[in-house]
Order: sequence, then C-alpha cells, then structure tokens
Amino acid sequence: MPATHAPTVVIENFYPCIEGGRHPVKRVIGEPLDVWCDIFKDGHDVMSAVLRWRLAGSKRWSEAPMKLDSNDRWHASCAFEKAGRWEYLVEAWGDTFRSWKKTFAVRVGAKDPDVPIEAREGARLLKEAAARAKKAGASAAASQMQECADLLVKVPAQDILEVLQSDEMQSLMDQFPDRELSTVSATMQVIVERDRARFSAWYEFFPRGAEGRADKHSTFRDCLGRLDHAAHLGFDVIYFPPIHPIGITARKGKNNTLTALEGDVGSPWAIGGPAGGHRAVEPALGTIEDFKWLVGEANKRGLEIALDFAINCSPDHPYVKEHPEWFYQRPDGSIRYAENPPKKYQDIYPINFHCDDWKALWKELIDVVQFWVDCGVKIFRVDNPHTKPVAFWEELIGTIQRKDPDVLFLAEAFTKPKMMQVLGKIGFTQSYTYFTWRESRAELEEYARELFHGDMRWYYRANFWPNTPDILPGHLQNAGPQMFRIRAALAATMSSTWGMYTGYELGENEPYPGKEEYNHSEKYQLVQRDYNKPGNINGFIRKLNLIRRDNAALHLYDNLRFHAADHSQIISYSKATPDFSNRILCFINLDPKQTAASMVHLDLAALGLDASKPFKVIDLLHGGAYDWNGAHNYVELKPDGVSMHVFRVEQA
Amino acid sequence: MPATHAPTVVIENFYPCIEGGRHPVKRVIGEPLDVWCDIFKDGHDVMSAVLRWRLAGSKRWSEAPMKLDSNDRWHASCAFEKAGRWEYLVEAWGDTFRSWKKTFAVRVGAKDPDVPIEAREGARLLKEAAARAKKAGASAAASQMQECADLLVKVPAQDILEVLQSDEMQSLMDQFPDRELSTVSATMQVIVERDRARFSAWYEFFPRGAEGRADKHSTFRDCLGRLDHAAHLGFDVIYFPPIHPIGITARKGKNNTLTALEGDVGSPWAIGGPAGGHRAVEPALGTIEDFKWLVGEANKRGLEIALDFAINCSPDHPYVKEHPEWFYQRPDGSIRYAENPPKKYQDIYPINFHCDDWKALWKELIDVVQFWVDCGVKIFRVDNPHTKPVAFWEELIGTIQRKDPDVLFLAEAFTKPKMMQVLGKIGFTQSYTYFTWRESRAELEEYARELFHGDMRWYYRANFWPNTPDILPGHLQNAGPQMFRIRAALAATMSSTWGMYTGYELGENEPYPGKEEYNHSEKYQLVQRDYNKPGNINGFIRKLNLIRRDNAALHLYDNLRFHAADHSQIISYSKATPDFSNRILCFINLDPKQTAASMVHLDLAALGLDASKPFKVIDLLHGGAYDWNGAHNYVELKPDGVSMHVFRVEQA
Repeated sequence: MPATHAPTVVIENFYPCIEGGRHPVKRVIGEPLDVWCDIFKDGHDVMSAVLRWRLAGSKRWSEAPMKLDSNDRWHASCAFEKAGRWEYLVEAWGDTFRSWKKTFAVRVGAKDPDVPIEAREGARLLKEAAARAKKAGASAAASQMQECADLLVKVPAQDILEVLQSDEMQSLMDQFPDRELSTVSATMQVIVERDRARFSAWYEFFPRGAEGRADKHSTFRDCLGRLDHAAHLGFDVIYFPPIHPIGITARKGKNNTLTALEGDVGSPWAIGGPAGGHRAVEPALGTIEDFKWLVGEANKRGLEIALDFAINCSPDHPYVKEHPEWFYQRPDGSIRYAENPPKKYQDIYPINFHCDDWKALWKELIDVVQFWVDCGVKIFRVDNPHTKPVAFWEELIGTIQRKDPDVLFLAEAFTKPKMMQVLGKIGFTQSYTYFTWRESRAELEEYARELFHGDMRWYYRANFWPNTPDILPGHLQNAGPQMFRIRAALAATMSSTWGMYTGYELGENEPYPGKEEYNHSEKYQLVQRDYNKPGNINGFIRKLNLIRRDNAALHLYDNLRFHAADHSQIISYSKATPDFSNRILCFINLDPKQTAASMVHLDLAALGLDASKPFKVIDLLHGGAYDWNGAHNYVELKPDGVSMHVFRVEQA
Repeated sequence: MPATHAPTVVIENFYPCIEGGRHPVKRVIGEPLDVWCDIFKDGHDVMSAVLRWRLAGSKRWSEAPMKLDSNDRWHASCAFEKAGRWEYLVEAWGDTFRSWKKTFAVRVGAKDPDVPIEAREGARLLKEAAARAKKAGASAAASQMQECADLLVKVPAQDILEVLQSDEMQSLMDQFPDRELSTVSATMQVIVERDRARFSAWYEFFPRGAEGRADKHSTFRDCLGRLDHAAHLGFDVIYFPPIHPIGITARKGKNNTLTALEGDVGSPWAIGGPAGGHRAVEPALGTIEDFKWLVGEANKRGLEIALDFAINCSPDHPYVKEHPEWFYQRPDGSIRYAENPPKKYQDIYPINFHCDDWKALWKELIDVVQFWVDCGVKIFRVDNPHTKPVAFWEELIGTIQRKDPDVLFLAEAFTKPKMMQVLGKIGFTQSYTYFTWRESRAELEEYARELFHGDMRWYYRANFWPNTPDILPGHLQNAGPQMFRIRAALAATMSSTWGMYTGYELGENEPYPGKEEYNHSEKYQLVQRDYNKPGNINGFIRKLNLIRRDNAALHLYDNLRFHAADHSQIISYSKATPDFSNRILCFINLDPKQTAASMVHLDLAALGLDASKPFKVIDLLHGGAYDWNGAHNYVELKPDGVSMHVFRVEQA
C-alpha cells in the first residue's frame, strides 16, 4: 500500500507493546492475541478498522474487523496457525458508507430538503462498491449493491431506509469497503512457537551418569533406562549438559578442585579436546551416530532431547589454534582465560564476540547450532547467555528460527532482572527464574505477579526449577522429602513449564560446605546413584506430571490467580481455562514440619464460579472430593498426611 | 558514528518517552530535561554512558556523563539554550579502563602472580588514551597518561595504585575514553520553545468591539485603550478572533440566526469576502498596515498579539472560485457546506484536506501562517484543529517552527481526550482544556493530576480559561462576582498559563436561554460595554497577574501539589521552585456563598519545609502574614471577606 495520501487516521498506543514495538510479543500456535490500540481521526466520520496479520514475508494477509470499546480504544483478536515470525498491523479509515448512512437517516427523519441530493451521494457510494465487487468477481454482490443504488435515486428515501440500514447491506458493503484513504499503523512482531514453548516438563541428567555408577562412565547407548524412567515420571524434555569432548589442559578435579587426578572426568562445560569442539561428542559417550540413535529412541518414548549450548572453549578447543583472533590476547601474547578476580577459570577461554573477525565468528557459532538442529535437536538450553552480547543471541535465534521455527531456546541467565528480561524480549523461548530463591508466600506471590500478570508475560516464559546441578538452595540442604514435594508441586503447578535435575526425586540434599552447591557435584565426577532408593518421591513426581498433562488449565501460562488464606503458611492459587471447562485450585502448606489449618477465601470470579450454587473440589493427588459452598472454606494441611491439595473444581 | 561492530550495550526503556519516541517531549529554554534509561551489557565490565544532545541538523553535540541510579537504571539531565527542534540520545560502552582498574586492584590485593602482565595491559590502555589526547591536541594530558603508563610497568604495582585510583586520573581518562565499541541508542526528540510557551496570561477581545460601542465598529486604530487596559490587568498575550474579511453570502445574524439583517457584522469565523481571504483583513477593521502598526504598539506595551487561525471559508472566499477542487462537491456539482445533521452551517465551506491537490492545498495554508508570521505575529490560536487532519498540523507546525521556533500554537480542541492529547504530542504548544467544566474539589484535583502529574505533562501544556466567546459555563450563568473571582484564581494559580475573554472582568453572566453560550454574543454583533462598569473585578485580576509575575513558582508548569483540607469546599495546593526559593500556597473556598472553615494539613515535603521549625505565610492578595507551625493549621474563608489565600511561604 504505497501512501499516495497523507495519513488520515491516528493509530497508536498499542497493547501489548514491548519497547515501542522494537521487540516481538510471544504466542504459541493457536493462542489468541488480543490487540488493543487507539484509533481516531478528525471530524465526525464513522470509523472502521481491521486487524491484519501474516507470516513475515508472506504476501497473504489475514484480517479481522476491530471493535470500538470506548474512548477511541479499539480491539480485535487473532491467532496464528503455525510457528514462525509473524507480523500484524492495524488499518483504519473513515467509513464513507457508514458515515453517509448515519447522516442520511437523520436527514430523512428531519425531512431535510436535501434528501434527494444526498440520496444521489449514497447511490454513488453504492455504485463504487458494486464496481469493486465486480472487479473482485463477486457479481451477485455487485448486482445487489447496484440495485440498491438504482432504487435509492428512484423511490422515496423512506421506502429504502430499512434496506440501507439492514445488517445484510452493511455486511455486503463491509466486504468491499472504500479504503482509498485508509491509514496503516506501524507493523508489530510476534514470535509464534509450538506448544512445548509454553507447556513442558524438563528432566536433566548427565548421560555419563545414566547408570548411576561411580565406577563406570555411561554412554549414549546406556541411556535407555534413564529415558524410560523420565518418561514414566511424566517428563517430556530430556536435557543433557554439554556432550562435547572435554578439555584436558587445566581440567578441574572433583568438587571443582584446580588439579584433576588420574581418571577425573572433568566438567562437560569445558568444551573442546583432541576429539574436537562443539560439533563433536565426547568419545567416552560414544559417537554422533550413537547420539542420533538416542534422539530417535527418545522420540519413540514421546520425549525430546535438549542440548546445552555453552560457548566455552577449553584450552584444547580446535578454535584456539584455528582462530586465536576469536579470543582475548594478553600483553604477553597468551590467550586470556576466564576470570572474575580473584577467581580464575584456567580451563575456559572466553570468546571475544567483538573481535575484528566477529562476523565469521558469529556465523560459525550459529552454524554449530544448525549442525545439532540437523542432528534432530530442537531444544537448546543456553548456558550463561548474559555473558555474551544480547545482539548475538538476537541474531542467532532469529537465524535459526527463520529456518526452523520449531527450535526452542531456554536461557540460563541467573543474573540481574533487566538482562534476564531483555533475553526474553529478543527471542529466548523460556528462561530460568528466581523461583529457586522465593520461599515465603509473600515472596512467591509477589514474584508470580511480576512474571504472570505484568508486561513480562508478553515475552518471558518462566521455567521453574527447584534445583539444578549448580544450585542446591538453602531450603533443600539436608531437608527431608516433604520440602522436595512442596517445591516440586509449586514449580509444576504455578508455571506451565518446569524442570528438575536428576537426584531431586531421590532427595539428594548434601551441600558443599558453606555453599549453595552440591557436594561431590556430578559436574566434576561420576556419581553413584540408586534411582529407586527408598524414600524417593518418584510416585509423587509422576502424579504431578500426569495431573499437568490431564488438565488443560495447567498448560496455560498467564492464568495464575491467587486466593486468600488466613494462615500465612498456606499458599493458594488457581489456574483455569478461559471457558472455565477446566479449573485447578491448589493449597500448599509451605511449612514442611508444622500443620497449617485455616479458613481460605476464594476469588470465585477468577474460578468462574457462581456464588449462589455449591461446587465440588476433587483432590487429584489423594483422591476424594468435597462439596464446598461460597468463597469461605476450611483447609487443614498436615506434613505427615495430606499436606497439599491439587483440586479440580466442578460446578454443575 | 557508522556501526562497524554489532551493538555491545542494551539501551532501552527511556523515560520520558511518548509513543516509543515517535513524538517529541516539550521543554522551554533553560528548563532541565531529566533523561532516564536502562543501560547494561553482558559480562562484568564497568559501564560508562553519556547523554548527548544537539539542535537537530547541527553537527555539534553537547554531552553529559550519566549516572547509575540502581538496577541498571541510569540518568542525566540537560537543558537547551535556544528554541528549536532538538534531539538527544544515549551513548554507552563497557569502560575498558575502569574495568581494568577495578580488577587490577583486586589482583594487587590478592597478590596475584599475574599482576605484572596485567600492569602491561593497563599501560596499553593508558597509552592508547594518551594517543587520543595527543590527537585532540591535549598534550599535557597525553604526557600525564603516558607517564603513568611508563610507571605502571616499571614500579611495583602497590606504589602506583593510589595514582591510578585517583579521581584526577579517572577524570583525565574520562576526557579521552575508548568508545570504539560504544553503542548509541535510538534518537529522541524535543521541542524547545521560548518561555511564553509555558508562562503566559491571555486576554481575548474582538478588535471590532474595542471601544465597547454597539453603534460603531471599532478599527485596529481604536484598540490602544484595550491594549492599555489589558497591560494594566497584567496580561501579556492579546488574542484576536479572526481579523479577515467576513463573508456576505449566508452571513449569520445576531444570536446565530440564519439570516443577517442590514448592518449585521457577521461572524469573524466565516472567513473570506470580496476584500480577500486569509491573507487580507476585514476592511471595517482597517488595513494590513494598520494591523502591523497595532502589533508594534502592543509590543511597546510588553504585549504580544496572537491571531486566530481558523480554516473556515465562507462561500465568498477567493479559494472557492480559484480552487473549487479543495472543497467537497455534492452530486449536483455544488460545493458542500458544513453540516452536523440536522444542523447546517451554510456560511462555511469545509475544506477537503485529502483532495487530489492536497499537497498544494497544505502548502498554501502553511504559507498563510507564514504570511502572518512575517507580519510580526508569533502566536496563533488554532480554531477547531480536531476537525482537520492531525498529520496536517504536524506538517504545519513543524514547517513553521523549523523556520521560526519562536512561533507558538494554542489548540482550541474541545473534543475527546485522545484527540486533544495527540494534538499536543504532534506539536501544539498549548491547549485549551476541560478546566471550564471541572467544578468540585474532587473534579479539579483529579483533572489536575492527569494534566500535571501524568505523562501528559511531557507534551501537553494546559491553558486554563474560565470563559471563551463560545462558552459561558453553568456556574458563571447569572453568577455574582465572587464566582468570577474563584474561577479566575483557580485558572491563574493552578496552571502557569491561563486566559480570559473580555467581559469576564465585568462579570458578564447572561446566557442564551438553555445554552452554555452568551446571549447577544459578540460573535455575531457589536456589543455595548462599559469597561469600568461598577462591580468589575479589574483590581482582582490585576493582583492575580502581578502575583504570577512576581513569583517564579507560578511560572513553572508541572509543580502543582495538593494539600488536604477537612472542609470539602476548601481546595488547597502549592507550587514551588525546585530549590524552594519561592513557594506559593493557595487556599480557595469553592463555595461563592457560604463560609468554609476547617483544619488544613500540609504536605511539608512538597513545600520543602522543615517540620521542626515555624514558617511564615504571607497573604499576597490581602496583605498580612501568619506564623504557622507544622502541617496542621486552621483556615477560615468567607465569601464576603477573605475568601481565598494566595500565600507566599517563607522559612528561615
């Protein structure tokens, strides 16, 4: 639409809108996007407006009429049928036919002597629409409009007013509106991803520890047992720490000690050795072919394997020799290793993303991701993205997703809020969060409101993890299984996407003294594990994941609503589908040791409940059902018995 | 700065920011602009950032260092030394010297064996800065840095640490920073205008009524008495309704009747007759030379004459014959007159701003404004801008102000809020408001908060008018002088810019029956007036305007703060300069008939008052002073005595 005229309409104040439209909103396939904006023009014209959207680069626009809400605020909704980068805009115009029709009716009512001449004006508008219809091949519509035009100048206005004002005539005209003087808004962006971008349950394990043996390095071929276990627990994404050759020079020993002993396996995040770099696999795990075989086996079980993308190079990485210019040089000509003085990480060489050869460097790193995509990997957990340029990630994710929009990226950015947010804005599908450190009800509620109710919900998908190989939070250290149940339940029901690192289900709780880390961390050694250890919470985890799968409300992201409980240790929240066909209501006692009992006060509107009728709450964790009535009810949660409720709510 | 590298820094979330930077912020000359934004990058670099600003088109940037507030939020302030379109941006970079210095100190403290090699790194940074200094001709600075570089590799690190960490060394380095990898934000816009854009008192009169005689049409040469009167009352802008030839065809009679009688003078807003159009003056007023003479006389008295720019054409306007294509044609070939069915305005032909010849049309209208600018008019009150395209006004104001940034525009848009706002956003200097219809304390406070505390304060300058020739609001109809005092005091002290239409000071209060308009409106006839009529409030108006002039706090726009009063009819607010060197505190009894007395509760912080010390309030309207102490004080306001206080507040 070349602008052969000046803008006639003001279209602004879009909602949602991230940084003035600089960043895209996120949606999954089929998820509605409600677009709001101000639309108005000078004078008294009746306005019409449409929302238009298309896959970026496509020639074909879809279109939906917008509706006036009030105070010049308009809105319309659309959804996207496939993954990709989409765009949308608003087109608006002074509607000549509607405007004419409105004043014509007033004239007729007022017996205005100008009615005959204004009838001719209306006839002109109808004829022009008929011509547009004819051009579009809609000859029946064209005839109808032409007929109306002819009548308008022949019969008394009073006789044709009803036809003119009919919905039928208007909808005919709406198919061929006069948009010659329309105005088009700025173009807004949407990243549309597959459903797993929003709804997923992650299970992380080290393939080398698949058999849980301290005396044997497992291979990809040894991983089937772990896959079956994870599938049984109801997970759908299996996330592997880096699988590439591990550096030998300056390899870290057990518990992150500076010198590795004979037989120490090293950290998988120190990437690159004689066997290759980011395109290779650690020989002790097998071959690329073995890996591809495992990807296939996972898929057979309804699982997807996610790889870690960690841009760390060990001193033995092929890049160091092939591209020393990609690294930082020290004044003595040696390559600078990673440091956070006084801490030194001699096993890692950071990359200089703004070196003179940056374009080739960026291309190579993007090609590495594409290499693994071509091996069948469609999900990447990105290690410390906040230590690489934001512009680099925008380029990488854009390039990969434009080719294959099914590829998803999880940002592992435990850092300051603004950086975490911008990584979501520029394209990361999901992100780790501060959930791991939010303990009290007040903390959890405040943080959840920020994530799920504020502007962040447009671009940031919070993946809740109770633990990671790097983090054994204080509340889990030396804690009993009840605390592990509580944190898993919170993660799995508050957000639609959550994950845990292996051993969580076994209650592994031993910290490295004085740190928020595991003792004898699997990052640096092989670990002995009994995956069916007595006291495990396998059954509980499985139940949580199956409840998630069975209840559509838990598949949605920003539908979390809080309810009040008099006891400060009882947290209560619900999630419902927009039509309330599925409603989940949770009560969790945050204290793993003391019983908590009190009245709870439901926000019935948030649950779509009719206050005048009773409703049923069905305990999905423990079985049983209760008849409740109204907002105010009593709950008793005992650590050694029913310590939490995950209710499905039904009202006849 | 061509981007030879990818962005290294994220710079976003600007405050202020109007529609993502699409629209300019407004400032007057010398008024500070506080710029806030988020600035951060990957990794652990210490950041540096500067705010840069320049007159649009100029090559010379000014620059001020930005400061980190918290949570990656930075800010800096600038001001603009002359009127014009300005622009600003933020440049930020990872500061190599600061980053090096920080880690070097840690290394020295930790006795890191790498200290010597890192000293060489620091020496390199110092040498590079020295080279930049040398290139800039700062040879003394260059020597100092070179010397420090030399020492750094010669003497023990401990011995030079103090010099390195000195403010002196840092400020030296800050003059020649390494910005090679800096990132520049989006460019933001500012409209900077002369002080009268923010601080002005308008007096509107019809030059044809200058002598107040129903039997004689006054001329420009008859206006000196009015000018002297207005100057005496303390006004500084004299606003004239249109001065152009008035149409004869379909001229309106007295009280807006459809047919004019012999001798009826017609509405000045029906522009264009045998004597010409928008470039001519109504012959009954005199000549263009007479008008120019009057402009000079006004200037001698410290007054400025503002003209009305009303794009209305009478059927006799030269455009109608010369450019029929600029108007709307009806099906019978006649030109469409203005209508809001069933109302008809046969004396006005609306212009088709989107006709095929729109570019020539727009240019002609802009040229008309330029014509009057060239005649010495620097302020325009624009009639009904909301009935012409917003894009047209943006073009007009931009074109005129780029040539002469001293030209100011007041929007007379009494319409829906979004339209009123956007006219401010696209460039109107000031705007009329809903003040005229805000009566109760709650209404006044709510509206003032929207105008002076919200985002509107960045672009919308509210000009408060208690009356206009079109509007005699309900509360003034048949009201006594006390109501006129109240509304004038509110207008003159709440906003820094206010105005009134002649006759207000005389208490003219007779409505056209059933309407919010004047009976025997001056719009359609000559009106008999005694400008010194007994019961006038000339003295009160003069006092108000002189208080405004003498108190800098009342010159500022967005510094209005409310205080609490127990009595619901007492409104209390204050305005202070940022340094509290001038503080005005008002108490107004909104009831013109009943006494209001109650405790009032001051926001001492808003007044910059020390709660532990007494302060003095000096009544600028009535004389006298009181010693007050603390937030809670007593006020008694009597309609027939001291009905309001305008205090100056002083604390030793």
